[in-house]
Amino acid sequence: MADKLIIFDTTLRDGEQSPGASMTRDEKLRIARQLERLKVDVIEAGFAASSNGDFEAVQLIANTIKDSTICSLSRANDRDISRAAEALKGANNARIHTFIATSALHMEKKLRMTPDQVFEQAKQSVRFARNLVADIEFSPEDGYRSDPDFLCRVLEAVINEGATTINVPDTVGYAIPELYGEFIKTLRERIPNSDKAIWSVHCHNDLGMAVANSLAGVKIGGARQVECTINGLGERAGNCSLEEIVMAVKTRKDYFGLELGIDAKHILAASRMVSQTTGFVVQPNKAVVGANAFAHASGIHQDGVLKARDTYEIMRAEDVGWTANKIVLGKLSGRNAFKQRLQELGVQLESETEVNAAFARFKELADRKSEIFDEDILALVSDESVSDDKEQFGFVSLSQHSETGERPQAAIVFTMDGKEVKSSSEGNGPVDASLKAIEAHVKSGAEMVLYSVNAISGSTESQGEVTVRLQNSGRVVNGVGADPDIVVASAKAYLSALNKLQSKADRVAAQG
Amino acid sequence: MADKLIIFDTTLRDGEQSPGASMTRDEKLRIARQLERLKVDVIEAGFAASSNGDFEAVQLIANTIKDSTICSLSRANDRDISRAAEALKGANNARIHTFIATSALHMEKKLRMTPDQVFEQAKQSVRFARNLVADIEFSPEDGYRSDPDFLCRVLEAVINEGATTINVPDTVGYAIPELYGEFIKTLRERIPNSDKAIWSVHCHNDLGMAVANSLAGVKIGGARQVECTINGLGERAGNCSLEEIVMAVKTRKDYFGLELGIDAKHILAASRMVSQTTGFVVQPNKAVVGANAFAHASGIHQDGVLKARDTYEIMRAEDVGWTANKIVLGKLSGRNAFKQRLQELGVQLESETEVNAAFARFKELADRKSEIFDEDILALVSDESVSDDKEQFGFVSLSQHSETGERPQAAIVFTMDGKEVKSSSEGNGPVDASLKAIEAHVKSGAEMVLYSVNAISGSTESQGEVTVRLQNSGRVVNGVGADPDIVVASAKAYLSALNKLQSKADRVAAQG
Repeated sequence: MADKLIIFDTTLRDGEQSPGASMTRDEKLRIARQLERLKVDVIEAGFAASSNGDFEAVQLIANTIKDSTICSLSRANDRDISRAAEALKGANNARIHTFIATSALHMEKKLRMTPDQVFEQAKQSVRFARNLVADIEFSPEDGYRSDPDFLCRVLEAVINEGATTINVPDTVGYAIPELYGEFIKTLRERIPNSDKAIWSVHCHNDLGMAVANSLAGVKIGGARQVECTINGLGERAGNCSLEEIVMAVKTRKDYFGLELGIDAKHILAASRMVSQTTGFVVQPNKAVVGANAFAHASGIHQDGVLKARDTYEIMRAEDVGWTANKIVLGKLSGRNAFKQRLQELGVQLESETEVNAAFARFKELADRKSEIFDEDILALVSDESVSDDKEQFGFVSLSQHSETGERPQAAIVFTMDGKEVKSSSEGNGPVDASLKAIEAHVKSGAEMVLYSVNAISGSTESQGEVTVRLQNSGRVVNGVGADPDIVVASAKAYLSALNKLQSKADRVAAQG
Repeated sequence: MADKLIIFDTTLRDGEQSPGASMTRDEKLRIARQLERLKVDVIEAGFAASSNGDFEAVQLIANTIKDSTICSLSRANDRDISRAAEALKGANNARIHTFIATSALHMEKKLRMTPDQVFEQAKQSVRFARNLVADIEFSPEDGYRSDPDFLCRVLEAVINEGATTINVPDTVGYAIPELYGEFIKTLRERIPNSDKAIWSVHCHNDLGMAVANSLAGVKIGGARQVECTINGLGERAGNCSLEEIVMAVKTRKDYFGLELGIDAKHILAASRMVSQTTGFVVQPNKAVVGANAFAHASGIHQDGVLKARDTYEIMRAEDVGWTANKIVLGKLSGRNAFKQRLQELGVQLESETEVNAAFARFKELADRKSEIFDEDILALVSDESVSDDKEQFGFVSLSQHSETGERPQAAIVFTMDGKEVKSSSEGNGPVDASLKAIEAHVKSGAEMVLYSVNAISGSTESQGEVTVRLQNSGRVVNGVGADPDIVVASAKAYLSALNKLQSKADRVAAQG
């Protein structure tokens, strides 16, 4: 049997660290379920010690997800490690991932510690963690820019203390494939006990080479774990893309000769879920999951594809979850058909009540729109603004008007703590007027840092799905709303974001 | 002096081949001007023989752009090559880029030719081209999947016939960096006259490795030209990104040791121009040009960045054209300030009449919006719907209304061949109603294949910029419209797309 490559997904930790990508506990659980469906080996669910919210998210995921190993990040100190272990108590398979920076620059400027202090702290932390959990991953932050002699000393020591996985991050995305591969290889050759741990790669995409660097770490360096995120979500230019790593290893099995546990046909649903949750669009020319990834335009290419599929295709769209038949449901579709389609799309609602609520929204939409596409269904279930009676704010109705030469106007009715409120305003456009009308009453003082309309399907007959990102006192939240009327979708998204601003606790986050 | 790496941009040829990315002649010229400002060495302006429209675009660019070499693609036959040479007549420096497939799969299934026939045709075509133009590039299509013995035979022959650049495409995006680098190296070592040509790499991003593959072709293989596109635009998952190649070679000059002619500070303006023209969004986590590429969210990272910038930053945002100061103009800004800001943004309008028209739109916008951002200005000048009196359709006014429980309604006034037309309709939402109102009168029969709202700046006080992509009888066009009222922006975009549908000729396109 060939070696197995372990896929470690950090969408919920390093991905979520991306400015504006923060998620609620329920959103994280929904994504974790999809990652389990994908058969991801390890899910890094968060950084338990960073906030109560993150602790609860890690705990909920550890208690719910049973097939994947659940991991929490933690700085190299006893308090962080204890919190991580506590959050992971309910997990079938728990991993603590502890880290400390080892590059001269990071030790001096950020940690203000000497190398000897860092060495001791790394060792003691792994020893402490090893007594709480058997599966311990250690990362020397900015490892690729660290002095190799010092790095060897630290890594040998933490393996002696019981670290079972050694991860070498290219924290700033500075590596080149052949150099990074050789770097990992040299470490493994020089460290006497290197065979006692699984080696892992963690690459950032600042120079566009995260995937190639990771694969060089695997092929040249001998690493057997890749850390990655759905859609390459992550700080700055993001992390290595899960979908690209997986499809490269599968497509070039002739070269890599590695087995994967991943069930690739759930990739597209995972990509859409992460994009809709965070409001981070996937560009059409994104590999594997972009709208154009499997499309051919030019005459010569089309001709080639018709004559022999593999003249221009090295993978099949179906293998990652693209289906040709997109029209699925209409006005006459019943509850069972709806539920089955949800399952096929990889969506699992938490309770029958939620299924019923989603089905009611589906019927309402089908009254207004004859063809219901997969995208519409995904938008329906991600439309949070109408899904929860316990929320502080809820949409009731909207009336808006704009006319060339006049100021656009909107009047909205919404619930606030259970009571109906009416408010109206002018604005630069009808969307602006609607959101100003809400804000005129709520006075959240939040700053809007993103307004984005996600194209759901081609035409304007579709539902529009809007993401609104609000920032207030250092907190950033995303609200999503969907409706065939883009102004209504925008108001729903704004109310959804306000709900999250109210409910989400402050937190710190960490590490690349 | 270090070796120079030639940057060959094919945004206007291979990029434009992306489904839905087709551009008008004027759009291509505008982008070519920006590529010249970037100091791109070679601009592949199109595929002259593919259509009259592409011929005219290549000709116009060859006659206008004087600093960069202008190139036209051409199949390996006398007719294509003659058309390319004719289109390039006005160029200061002209290049013909001719290609024929050399992989067994492509020769058999697509060309239905024997290897000997392909060999002869390649040789004869280069000989024919060499008598018309001195600078000849030859590409063996699907070269990376071709039999090395056959490939060596073909490439040696075309160099003997006078090909000055040899480009080795990974047409289907199948390569791995170390393998592709070795492939180029082996070809160069085995072909006796390989030193008579400059070697070039052309990689696709299907497995997410186009940039790394290209750089391996350069470092390991010894290539000295990279073919790339702005934003990695291109068929399927796109081509190698110009911005990533450029910043990797600059940032890792310690490793590559190569000189570049590129003036990187125009990169961001080029990225935005290509994105706005094609309606292809750039995802926030895109390297170099994504909105988050230089943003830091987590507490630990922010702290690190404050303490020492290079703890987490390997390039400076300013170096590629990001500026911190985004608010530039307001109601009281004069024509000179506006014109100067246009220049700083890299926008060159064709005539004083166009500057005056753009300035009038700016004043009108400033009446409605107190702070005018760079994005607003770029949207203003790309808003084609109001810029040309010769167009068949023009926007006049719109009135729309939506109210919960009722069908949204819109009434629009627009010009059609100089006459004002009124039309009204219902729709699923106000945007849908407005576009249906236009279509009710025009009856174009076009299918809408994309509706996208580009986030211009964070909040809904901004202008909305809408791209509408229409398809009719095999032609695909994009229309762009901008307005603070998203419904108006949508109507303008639809009218703009209709104008292009009327004016654009049929064409074939080719080669990856």
